[in-house]
Amino acid sequence: MKKYSGYLIDLDGTVYNGTEKIPEAVQFVKQLNEESIPYLFLTNNSTKHPKDVANKLRDMGIDAKEKDVFTTSMATATYISEMSPGARVYPIGEEGLDFALKQAGLIVTDQNIDYVVMGLDRGITYEKLATGALAIRNGAKFIATNGDVALPSERGFLPGAGSLISVLSVTTGVKPIFVGKPESIIVDQAMDVLGTEKSETVMVGDNYYTDILAGIRAGIDSLLVFSGVTTPDDLSSIDEQPTYTIDTLDQWSIK
Amino acid sequence: MKKYSGYLIDLDGTVYNGTEKIPEAVQFVKQLNEESIPYLFLTNNSTKHPKDVANKLRDMGIDAKEKDVFTTSMATATYISEMSPGARVYPIGEEGLDFALKQAGLIVTDQNIDYVVMGLDRGITYEKLATGALAIRNGAKFIATNGDVALPSERGFLPGAGSLISVLSVTTGVKPIFVGKPESIIVDQAMDVLGTEKSETVMVGDNYYTDILAGIRAGIDSLLVFSGVTTPDDLSSIDEQPTYTIDTLDQWSIK
Repeated sequence: MKKYSGYLIDLDGTVYNGTEKIPEAVQFVKQLNEESIPYLFLTNNSTKHPKDVANKLRDMGIDAKEKDVFTTSMATATYISEMSPGARVYPIGEEGLDFALKQAGLIVTDQNIDYVVMGLDRGITYEKLATGALAIRNGAKFIATNGDVALPSERGFLPGAGSLISVLSVTTGVKPIFVGKPESIIVDQAMDVLGTEKSETVMVGDNYYTDILAGIRAGIDSLLVFSGVTTPDDLSSIDEQPTYTIDTLDQWSIK
Repeated sequence: MKKYSGYLIDLDGTVYNGTEKIPEAVQFVKQLNEESIPYLFLTNNSTKHPKDVANKLRDMGIDAKEKDVFTTSMATATYISEMSPGARVYPIGEEGLDFALKQAGLIVTDQNIDYVVMGLDRGITYEKLATGALAIRNGAKFIATNGDVALPSERGFLPGAGSLISVLSVTTGVKPIFVGKPESIIVDQAMDVLGTEKSETVMVGDNYYTDILAGIRAGIDSLLVFSGVTTPDDLSSIDEQPTYTIDTLDQWSIK
């Protein structure tokens, strides 16, 4: 195994499953801290404030700070502000998206919209969708935090960001730019934050079609851990394999 | 020109444009009444009660009654009740859908759902979408009133039924059965109501991709009137032509 100077770590299915922590992951993060190896928690959850994500991790015994969390909303906001600093953005999403856009110095507005940005919004209304659709038809750029079509919950799989976003793409005929995993944009943004090079960074996650593909598309190594969605069986029919696969994170040596 | 015993007549673009009546259409309907030729107004508008549609027509000087209006919600309700009389149906839609389902003897409920039925719903919420998605994942059949992706309004094109419906099809992976134009189901249902045979019925409308295609798919003759969406230019690249085309309905002789 190669030694890496930077780790990008998925959360759900990798560090915890819903509200249950995965003990081997807690230990793994502890080792990264002890060895002072830089890492970021990389999540497609666009709705949460990074502080709340860090709080959840601390409740599970992980010494996480707000700065250790990089959400797809933060990646989206950074992506837009790099292209168009101070742009006028109409968000359809929750608290985490609103926070990230303002944090990046973007103007949140429903007038003279340069960008329509959409993520999961459990407070969705027809008026929000109408405003977004009209702006896109008037030439606003269309950016989406992530394409996950389903959201695991105790009730079963609920509509995910990708399914809500389809309203705007179907009605306008304009496909959005997706930022979150499996796209490379979020990985590139995260490496900028981490300050590590591609060759020395590894993407760790449980889901081949989001985490691992994001790593592959960004041109970095990937470590698939079978603690969540993807099983060894799933992998057998896949051409582009992860760089490494392990059952649990205690099988991985960081030094 | 052949003489027809039954007319199926589109509304928006054919009888009126938004709030403006089309005088030649008003005259045309008057002639049908004078000659006692059966007809139905056939609309993909799933949100309105047929009584309200008739009222709008009467305000334009057309002697229309509730029984002369056949909405895609009514076609959808009839379609379901023919397959499964008294079925348990979860509607995501507006007043017109709710009315039609109850009128057809179906049980409107959010428990033990046999059918999820979706149309345009400007009161859409995440909870409605979640309930629909969970029911479809649990085996409920998925029916859609119509697939129109955009809704003309004074503000521009707003999200139509077809774009909202995509949330459920994208998140569940299940494609709905569409009932409204350009599908043949609504035309078949309308001929049942009218009591006319295919060979003696004609579909009249302004939109090739909804009205005329519905006629073609149902195997009946069609009359395209250039008073709305489709232009003569649009037709030049189309293989399956309408049976007839005219500029305005005063060019058509019913007898």
